[in-house]
Amino acid sequence: MYSLEELVNRLGGELVGDGKVVVRRVATLDQAGEGDLSFLANPRYVSKLKSSQAAAVIVGPGARDLLTDRPRIVAPDPYLHFARVAQFFNPPEPAVPGIHPTAAVSVAIPASVSVAAGVVIEAGARIGEDVVIGAGSYIGRNCAVGRGTRISPRVSIYADCVIGQDCLIHSGAVIGSDGFGFAREKSGAWVKIPQVGRVVIGDEVEIGANTTIDRGALDDTWIGKGVKIDNQIQIGHNVRIGDYTAIAGCVGIAGSTVIGARCMVGGQAGIIGHLHIADDVVISAGTLVTKSINKAGVYTANLPVQGHADWVKNFAHLRHLDALVDRIRALEQRLEEKSSN
Amino acid sequence: MYSLEELVNRLGGELVGDGKVVVRRVATLDQAGEGDLSFLANPRYVSKLKSSQAAAVIVGPGARDLLTDRPRIVAPDPYLHFARVAQFFNPPEPAVPGIHPTAAVSVAIPASVSVAAGVVIEAGARIGEDVVIGAGSYIGRNCAVGRGTRISPRVSIYADCVIGQDCLIHSGAVIGSDGFGFAREKSGAWVKIPQVGRVVIGDEVEIGANTTIDRGALDDTWIGKGVKIDNQIQIGHNVRIGDYTAIAGCVGIAGSTVIGARCMVGGQAGIIGHLHIADDVVISAGTLVTKSINKAGVYTANLPVQGHADWVKNFAHLRHLDALVDRIRALEQRLEEKSSN
Amino acid sequence: MYSLEELVNRLGGELVGDGKVVVRRVATLDQAGEGDLSFLANPRYVSKLKSSQAAAVIVGPGARDLLTDRPRIVAPDPYLHFARVAQFFNPPEPAVPGIHPTAAVSVAIPASVSVAAGVVIEAGARIGEDVVIGAGSYIGRNCAVGRGTRISPRVSIYADCVIGQDCLIHSGAVIGSDGFGFAREKSGAWVKIPQVGRVVIGDEVEIGANTTIDRGALDDTWIGKGVKIDNQIQIGHNVRIGDYTAIAGCVGIAGSTVIGARCMVGGQAGIIGHLHIADDVVISAGTLVTKSINKAGVYTANLPVQGHADWVKNFAHLRHLDALVDRIRALEQRLEEKSSN
Repeated sequence: MYSLEELVNRLGGELVGDGKVVVRRVATLDQAGEGDLSFLANPRYVSKLKSSQAAAVIVGPGARDLLTDRPRIVAPDPYLHFARVAQFFNPPEPAVPGIHPTAAVSVAIPASVSVAAGVVIEAGARIGEDVVIGAGSYIGRNCAVGRGTRISPRVSIYADCVIGQDCLIHSGAVIGSDGFGFAREKSGAWVKIPQVGRVVIGDEVEIGANTTIDRGALDDTWIGKGVKIDNQIQIGHNVRIGDYTAIAGCVGIAGSTVIGARCMVGGQAGIIGHLHIADDVVISAGTLVTKSINKAGVYTANLPVQGHADWVKNFAHLRHLDALVDRIRALEQRLEEKSSN
Repeated sequence: MYSLEELVNRLGGELVGDGKVVVRRVATLDQAGEGDLSFLANPRYVSKLKSSQAAAVIVGPGARDLLTDRPRIVAPDPYLHFARVAQFFNPPEPAVPGIHPTAAVSVAIPASVSVAAGVVIEAGARIGEDVVIGAGSYIGRNCAVGRGTRISPRVSIYADCVIGQDCLIHSGAVIGSDGFGFAREKSGAWVKIPQVGRVVIGDEVEIGANTTIDRGALDDTWIGKGVKIDNQIQIGHNVRIGDYTAIAGCVGIAGSTVIGARCMVGGQAGIIGHLHIADDVVISAGTLVTKSINKAGVYTANLPVQGHADWVKNFAHLRHLDALVDRIRALEQRLEEKSSN
Repeated sequence: MYSLEELVNRLGGELVGDGKVVVRRVATLDQAGEGDLSFLANPRYVSKLKSSQAAAVIVGPGARDLLTDRPRIVAPDPYLHFARVAQFFNPPEPAVPGIHPTAAVSVAIPASVSVAAGVVIEAGARIGEDVVIGAGSYIGRNCAVGRGTRISPRVSIYADCVIGQDCLIHSGAVIGSDGFGFAREKSGAWVKIPQVGRVVIGDEVEIGANTTIDRGALDDTWIGKGVKIDNQIQIGHNVRIGDYTAIAGCVGIAGSTVIGARCMVGGQAGIIGHLHIADDVVISAGTLVTKSINKAGVYTANLPVQGHADWVKNFAHLRHLDALVDRIRALEQRLEEKSSN
């Protein structure tokens, strides 16, 4: 429970209105009531701002004077300011240090570490201060987990992988599974290429639920600092992802592709193997990237949705687009011939 | 082992032929032999009906007299009738009540509950009568699990989530992981928005293996009654899904999208964030929905598959479709000019 | 540590140059240094061959004499030869036989089997010699796991499933979860079809991290010998996959589809239900297959990626492709009429 004055003193922003007003939590404009601090980040929702019951709001400079009946915090980027306030109101759940009796821990770990029920930590693993490891998670031989990293229940980290500091890894994530590497015999049978590289993950990385990151074949798979990876993502062996890149749910990135810094990859997008994607590239949802992208910008390849009957009518022509272009060319030639006659 | 008479007495349908015939299990027309009850739901398979060795069959009114050599149960919807008979022959495996000694259970639970090896149930969780929790599953703080719900091995349910009655959750599912919410600093670094909403799941919901459902950012993620969700599905924060909607495998639904009741979403379809999908909408497999859909009906956007050489020839033109349309317009104008001359 | 002579004696290939040279591990051309054996499989990388610090290299007959300063092993298929050498240098980690005290094992198992912490093996399961079961994995009632199969941590295998010999199953995989089968009542409510078939998996199959394979509805789901399945793949009930087929990450295969032998399915491809795919079919990444494929060959349906503005301009026309074809037809008719006048 903080007064707006206290919040502004700690986290910045310009206070407009009664600074003695006390707020207890953050809430959306729709849901906010007494004691709630809300925010307006998208000008589309101005009408919600007016009808909201929020005790106070965070707004951008442009919305500073839209409301005069309620105290507000004005910040250059109200969504970013809201993020900081929300973190302030909702610190991570404190974990109880110590090792649960049902855990199987083969190494010495700092007293500040919390190891939940059923966790397995194999020999040679190095666990940093203040690490939290959730129930049933598996940390393989010789792994390193950096200070302050939180691992949710039921995560698997295979041998030799390196996780940075202050990471957050969600339930069901698998880090360091074998890459998909096989050579083919004449018979069609596959001979496995042992996958002996590691996964090396930088600091402040978040990895979503049931995401998988394969270890390198010979060299390492590498995830840069501050990368944010959503749920259900597959990252193949020897992929390299630059700092602060964010990847939305259900994306697949095939082996040996290198992605630059500060990229944003939309949900269900895919990137085939052995490509280079430049820094600051944005890939739209559902787009399959089949060629390297050498320049920052937004790239897209997805289809307009139609009613099924319209789709049948329109998309049948895609099978004959080349013939259609031939017909246009023929028309042009005939018209040309006519004109020159 | 039941006679057809007994089955019809219990589950309905019209008996045609010898009601004393005894059946022991359900089987496909292809595989059925002595003692097997099969069904014909799709008229395409009439030839299989004739060659089948099934002792008896469930058919629709139209197929009532296709066979006269075998007893049959006639029902208006033979597939639905088969479902009920199959449930009757295959009740869920009875679970042994009690708590396995390797489980770590921090709350009192009803004597009828079955808690398998390695399960973790955190403080404050409320577990209903007859709940079954499979090996290695994790139930977070203050969760509620409704009466009769069955949780398979290795499921994670994060703190504060609510699961209805008579649900079935498959292995590897993760419920209540953080939504993908970050604000961006000018440097490109991401500031996490704490995800403090819950996941609230209605009664009779089935959730497939390795499916992930994120908790809400501020408000809740919400799944209606009787919703059926297949494997490998990602449901983002603050999504709302109406009653009886069914979603096939590998679908991704981005944050804050609202889906109506009784919708059907085909496999590998995607729906981007902040959309509204009306009731009774059917989305075809592989379709990425990028706009709200306000009317019931079938919606599609996917591509015809071709041999690779044909695909190269045809699809290269997609990069120049606008220029192609310009060429058609130019032809039309020239022809118009010629005509008016 | 082996001399090239020893390697050639054991694994074949033609030795060119000093056979006394000793190598300790395999490495990429880029990373290789003293004591490293590398390989050139793709002629594109000839320049890397020349600059590499590798002590020795595996090359194909065409590259036999590209380097004369370094010893080399010449093999008809250098990548395949490299695979065999890499396996020789990197045998699977030996597992310690025995049952960890925190495992819950309800059956007798051979002394050669390794059962890690937190494993659950239910009654009736049959575990072959030399099987390795990683921490926290679950083996359901009456499952069979063949000799030499390695199961990573946190795998779930539901009751009655059969796994062949010498398989490798990665973390988070779920085998034998219920297929997605429901009949619909008039109200829209779904009635579950009990899924009573099994999953039957042949020898030498590899299954990737967080992949899911559903059990059959009535008959079995079936995976042939030597099939390689990458991460995050969904295989529906009653699918059948022929020997030596390889499937890349994030693929979805819907129920009852039959795939031939030696097929290759690219990443994020999808195959809808009830189709037949012939032997030796290659499906490109991102391709959704909606019709059966009866002939070997490469099949593709994906879109060219464009800058967003170009995409908007070009793809808007897809909604009106049929009208566009009508305009071309009209032009042809008018020109025809003009000509015949």
